[in-house]
Amino acid sequence: MRADQIRTAIDQIVETHQEWRRGCGAGEDNDAATPDALAAQALLRDLSLRLSKSSTPWPSPRYLAHMTPDVPAAVLLAAFTTLLYNPNNVAAEASPVTTDLESEVAADLCALLGMPSDTAHAHLASGGHAANYEALWIARNLRSLPHAAAAGPDTRPLVAHLPDHVLANPPTHVAIDVQQNLARAGRLDNARARAATLRCTAERGPGALILAANAHSCWTKCADVLGFRPADVHRLPLGPEHRIDVAALEKLVPTLIQAGAPIAAVVATVGSCGQGSVDDVARIVQLRDHCERDYGATFHLHLDAALGGYWRALCRTPQDAIRAWDEEHSPVSFDVYSALIAIEHADTVTIDPHKAGHVPYPAGALVIRDRRATAAVATANDYFDEAARPAGERTLEGARPGTAAAAVWAAHRLIGLHAEGYGRLLGGWSDTAQRLHQAIPTSQYRPDLNILNINSAKSPQELRAHGLWVSSTTLDGADRLRLCVMKYLSPEAMRNIGLRPLL
Amino acid sequence: MRADQIRTAIDQIVETHQEWRRGCGAGEDNDAATPDALAAQALLRDLSLRLSKSSTPWPSPRYLAHMTPDVPAAVLLAAFTTLLYNPNNVAAEASPVTTDLESEVAADLCALLGMPSDTAHAHLASGGHAANYEALWIARNLRSLPHAAAAGPDTRPLVAHLPDHVLANPPTHVAIDVQQNLARAGRLDNARARAATLRCTAERGPGALILAANAHSCWTKCADVLGFRPADVHRLPLGPEHRIDVAALEKLVPTLIQAGAPIAAVVATVGSCGQGSVDDVARIVQLRDHCERDYGATFHLHLDAALGGYWRALCRTPQDAIRAWDEEHSPVSFDVYSALIAIEHADTVTIDPHKAGHVPYPAGALVIRDRRATAAVATANDYFDEAARPAGERTLEGARPGTAAAAVWAAHRLIGLHAEGYGRLLGGWSDTAQRLHQAIPTSQYRPDLNILNINSAKSPQELRAHGLWVSSTTLDGADRLRLCVMKYLSPEAMRNIGLRPLL
Repeated sequence: MRADQIRTAIDQIVETHQEWRRGCGAGEDNDAATPDALAAQALLRDLSLRLSKSSTPWPSPRYLAHMTPDVPAAVLLAAFTTLLYNPNNVAAEASPVTTDLESEVAADLCALLGMPSDTAHAHLASGGHAANYEALWIARNLRSLPHAAAAGPDTRPLVAHLPDHVLANPPTHVAIDVQQNLARAGRLDNARARAATLRCTAERGPGALILAANAHSCWTKCADVLGFRPADVHRLPLGPEHRIDVAALEKLVPTLIQAGAPIAAVVATVGSCGQGSVDDVARIVQLRDHCERDYGATFHLHLDAALGGYWRALCRTPQDAIRAWDEEHSPVSFDVYSALIAIEHADTVTIDPHKAGHVPYPAGALVIRDRRATAAVATANDYFDEAARPAGERTLEGARPGTAAAAVWAAHRLIGLHAEGYGRLLGGWSDTAQRLHQAIPTSQYRPDLNILNINSAKSPQELRAHGLWVSSTTLDGADRLRLCVMKYLSPEAMRNIGLRPLL
Repeated sequence: MRADQIRTAIDQIVETHQEWRRGCGAGEDNDAATPDALAAQALLRDLSLRLSKSSTPWPSPRYLAHMTPDVPAAVLLAAFTTLLYNPNNVAAEASPVTTDLESEVAADLCALLGMPSDTAHAHLASGGHAANYEALWIARNLRSLPHAAAAGPDTRPLVAHLPDHVLANPPTHVAIDVQQNLARAGRLDNARARAATLRCTAERGPGALILAANAHSCWTKCADVLGFRPADVHRLPLGPEHRIDVAALEKLVPTLIQAGAPIAAVVATVGSCGQGSVDDVARIVQLRDHCERDYGATFHLHLDAALGGYWRALCRTPQDAIRAWDEEHSPVSFDVYSALIAIEHADTVTIDPHKAGHVPYPAGALVIRDRRATAAVATANDYFDEAARPAGERTLEGARPGTAAAAVWAAHRLIGLHAEGYGRLLGGWSDTAQRLHQAIPTSQYRPDLNILNINSAKSPQELRAHGLWVSSTTLDGADRLRLCVMKYLSPEAMRNIGLRPLL
């Protein structure tokens, strides 16, 4: 939108909002709270100047540091419009419009990731941390139900057909079946209580949490918050491409399954924070399915695709079909393409609209392959009408801004969750990253998505003096510069940013 | 602000932002992402109309349902201004301005609650859920360190002077001393790991979580997420005023302390969700201090003041001094006043700016009496510069919107955290609630803050047909209408809302 179009849109938004306020029998402002209009104007002017003077210049072609996308004006204005009505998506009562928008967004995300439309479920969250916490909470709780059912004299008959190693590591559909049977028998609360008690024993514990050495730092918090002991956390080594060494996983998992040691979840990453690497999801899915075939027992697969999830748009046509990998034109490798396709087989997936989704903070999301899994964490909430069960009964979080739902909805509608929409944009980021990799001799590996690591004696501070914004990370135990490419740079723009200080 | 002042402010905000974008070498919009300006304009128009047609009419004098405050225009515009620059308060690098604003806001909240300025610490969160989770995470971890230190042959000498019942229930300052000594000895990580392992045993567990029957539903989630077993959760009965029965607490706590049974936390509420009741914080603080005097051992006191925290402004003069209770003019009872004053003695406090703070979602906050306690949950994060340690290393959450910090900052600056600012506004809510209580014969109790429960055969839906918006709750096991008063209604406005259908 041009500057004048942006102003016209704002005028309409504000006018409509003020009509609404008058219709509510309220004045145009809450003047009782802030009676001094001059003070308010001065404060806004100061804030505006301060932000414009000192903000991180992320729209600049020379800014390649944090994961901040260049949010389109229409998305910012969708957020602003909604902010004026301040809806709370904790329950539809408090957000009649944005709860609907969130349902649309949830369907979008399920479709983007290839999840089955009849069972899949998604909701927004404050960010990737919350989505990851919730995924592990669901997996930990759901997967400990069969064992707990077996430990209760009254519920044992419901799982009598399952051998011990399946009780320890039920395939997700088996765990959900057990859960449904417990609910039908009126014993779910009881079994959940017993499961919580059994998870707090030295013998069982919460189960193993298996993730890679490069998993996001939030997983350290997540494991601790959710009561995992250090010995429960298995850190897998990385292969030469900074992806999970799946061979190590293929050794570890059958050993645990055969020993009857419960696994709470295996976490793989689609777009690691430090390197942007994409784990071999297809092969991990294969392992999960082979374990089920061979042992009748397997693990919960969670994908932390906070960064990379939106790249799956590259694999989708505007008609919602899968698009074949195109060797000549694809901005990502076949490995990455295959991993993106395989996301559809995961049990839970974290995806952050506030990263590649082109929306402002805060907007994370959790996608759940089978909505029924959320019953393992659901609570009741007593102060809403029975008619519309509030979302907050099945989410880790309570109050959630409808503003975020509207922003994501606007971005999805205007950009499009397919190769010609997000695919074109993110393909442009990847293309830029590939060209930077080729142009910088000390770039350490071919980027999977949009992040480069560079071996350099210079610090981010030194480069800032040259007008270049980068961050730092650790690769193979050594400090590196990290370039996170959240924009398309044409060959000419790339020349203009002045890479010389980096070389 | 008048409508024209609002427009002028927006014009300046947008113009300054567009100058900033041009200064960054970027166009006025990310046209590559949303090239179709007409589609964008149409979408914004639709969204605006949809919101104005169907949003919950919370500014209306007839809206007494959800906890949605009438956010002043200046606060909405502060949020909008900041949204345009999309800062992420996970680290100062990504939010140079709003990290500073959050520091100011943190100091405000510590001062509002009377916390010692030299040790106290606060930060914003996505809401009360996250703040409560984090508080219990800190308490659970910190308080299990002394016991873990005693269990390690290498660390035992550090706690040799502490008897077993103190190891189980260390006063906060003792737990922090132990933590600091462990850190100095280079054994903190080791002790934290041992503590996590010991918490996952049938014998010790995570400790007792003591809260009232009316604690917010998020506490059920919180206990489950953090690995508390049903038997660890002690639900205290309520007294006749729907406050914690402190006599029951005074029996339970010494029994646990004498038995050497660890208590993770006692949670009291300042403004319960269903009834708005305020627990007798002063007497609970006294119990905590008496236990320390009598046994050398005591509990962590967390206050869930998500709703009620801002009422403490009633107790503060604009000069930052304590204001005596004024029998004639105070809109709250002496009991409530005393509880508000006593907040300053809590170990951790949850307070939600997006409730009585007059800011839009999402804005919760956690206030911590002694910042050092956060070392019990801190992690490292490897992709930022060493110089500025990111906030995300000590918070439950990662990405956090700088927009929220700016909104809270604007509200605090424009309203004022004292009796003539928030005190006047919230006093007006309480005054309105008192008058509603007097006017409605079936109102069940004199409200502590701003929530009434009404015995009525009518449902919220029936009342909506009369243009009245209320919600429902449970009181003493029976369904009630719940009126949540988030505005001042003059006697005339109260007459105009038409209470008859409620009576």
